[in-house]
Amino acid sequence: MLSTNPQHWLRLKRIVRFGETDAAGVIHFHNLLRWCHEAWEESLERYGLHSSDVFPNGIQEEKILEVGMPIVHCKADFRLPIQTGDQLEISLLPEKIGIDSFQVQSNFQRDGENVALGLIRHLSINIQTRQRCELPKDIDRWLEASSLNSGPRSI
Amino acid sequence: MLSTNPQHWLRLKRIVRFGETDAAGVIHFHNLLRWCHEAWEESLERYGLHSSDVFPNGIQEEKILEVGMPIVHCKADFRLPIQTGDQLEISLLPEKIGIDSFQVQSNFQRDGENVALGLIRHLSINIQTRQRCELPKDIDRWLEASSLNSGPRSI
Amino acid sequence: MLSTNPQHWLRLKRIVRFGETDAAGVIHFHNLLRWCHEAWEESLERYGLHSSDVFPNGIQEEKILEVGMPIVHCKADFRLPIQTGDQLEISLLPEKIGIDSFQVQSNFQRDGENVALGLIRHLSINIQTRQRCELPKDIDRWLEASSLNSGPRSI
Amino acid sequence: MLSTNPQHWLRLKRIVRFGETDAAGVIHFHNLLRWCHEAWEESLERYGLHSSDVFPNGIQEEKILEVGMPIVHCKADFRLPIQTGDQLEISLLPEKIGIDSFQVQSNFQRDGENVALGLIRHLSINIQTRQRCELPKDIDRWLEASSLNSGPRSI
Repeated sequence: MLSTNPQHWLRLKRIVRFGETDAAGVIHFHNLLRWCHEAWEESLERYGLHSSDVFPNGIQEEKILEVGMPIVHCKADFRLPIQTGDQLEISLLPEKIGIDSFQVQSNFQRDGENVALGLIRHLSINIQTRQRCELPKDIDRWLEASSLNSGPRSI
Repeated sequence: MLSTNPQHWLRLKRIVRFGETDAAGVIHFHNLLRWCHEAWEESLERYGLHSSDVFPNGIQEEKILEVGMPIVHCKADFRLPIQTGDQLEISLLPEKIGIDSFQVQSNFQRDGENVALGLIRHLSINIQTRQRCELPKDIDRWLEASSLNSGPRSI
Repeated sequence: MLSTNPQHWLRLKRIVRFGETDAAGVIHFHNLLRWCHEAWEESLERYGLHSSDVFPNGIQEEKILEVGMPIVHCKADFRLPIQTGDQLEISLLPEKIGIDSFQVQSNFQRDGENVALGLIRHLSINIQTRQRCELPKDIDRWLEASSLNSGPRSI
Repeated sequence: MLSTNPQHWLRLKRIVRFGETDAAGVIHFHNLLRWCHEAWEESLERYGLHSSDVFPNGIQEEKILEVGMPIVHCKADFRLPIQTGDQLEISLLPEKIGIDSFQVQSNFQRDGENVALGLIRHLSINIQTRQRCELPKDIDRWLEASSLNSGPRSI
């Protein structure tokens, strides 16, 4: 059963944990990109997809995936210090780039103020041949449903 | 305003993310101990404490903490493979060991089955002198309130 | 070509990096267990083993491993604060526990002083059946060669 | 005592560890940005700087730093899968952007082939006032010495 209101799977929350900071007292930078990936996973889940339909489970896996979605590019901008206990609101802006590619931008706010921005771009490949292929149908549906959400898409 | 039912801050949930696995397809082991620490932080938060009253904020900090709670010991047991998307239930069992020490055991279950167990032991020290001192009052109250929760405490 | 002096693969060095600390200014605890695992990997490598003969490479893998070595237990003791830039010496003490199990203790020193101790225990299983099986021959040889190193083995 | 040949501190090596992979069998993407930061730290060290002169040590610190160098931007491109045991060569290209800013590009090769590229951009601020300020003299010297290394600087 899929949710129909994009706000339900494109607006998430996260609280910063102590182990994510460094000795400067703010989050160590690459954790932000980890949060972007985890926000994407949570978004797919809230939309109604099962992780085993999207992510490989390695040598344990019962279900063999045909399509992989390696990350080809990522970036992040940091605007204000982020500290332990900060309550962040994450707005996801997914965008289909082509039949074999998409990206997800994550905007992080604290009390309505922009604190950081992250972006991850994926390619879709056939796991056996390592050649580009069409995006998985589930991901295509999530991208389509998400685009009903108005507003600017790119950075 | 503090919650009064220990179940509210001693029973937590967590969903396993893709980046927490390794190429064997299961969580890379030390993440479990990270989850234990984050579960403790979430528990303090749900109980009603502010992270800035408990955790240092490094060189950024406005409020200078007098007491630190370094970890002196940790351990974990792994019983069943844990994979991406698994929905885990975490039961915390905090225990005061002395006036200057406490530990928190975290039991991880999936569909009612024990999958892993972690434990973290803290000491309480004066940050300036590095000598042992009494636990912070807030932590003491959380330990006291948590012990109203019945059941076995030690491993 | 295998090295024959155990000191060559059981005595390692590591320098602490900034991102491994937290806002208390010391290493965030679970990184120590990550270092233990990485020290074990470096030790196998220095002994002369190839990682592709020991560790699975997930869905990418050309060589299918028959035996997996999941971690069933780990622990760590922290004695002194560890900070960015600290130069640590790691002494590994591998120990065979049975035909299907072994553990590796890692002792961390700084300027000859003990600062922390970690331990990881592995089980050997057949990846297809998930049943216990004999340790891989390569690991057995490394354990055997390492035991020529004198000194206490257990904690 | 400072080294004088930039190759000594701008060409580094790193071997990929098992815990850095995910269930797809390749490195989980954000680790590459962690490697970029650690490569920068190793470069400063090899050049002759002490980490305590560059990085804060939080509430533990005896030496209070005046200048902080927060990261304001980072990005990475991934060209080929990177797996456990891969031996990577890292070429650093530091570049001064202004009196209060610099960036370090890290190019990762395996057997002479480009596998990934990362970039981190820092700002220099007065830790008390949080205002932009001149780069620390040590960093300036490292940037100057590094620019003696010929070749293209930007991406």
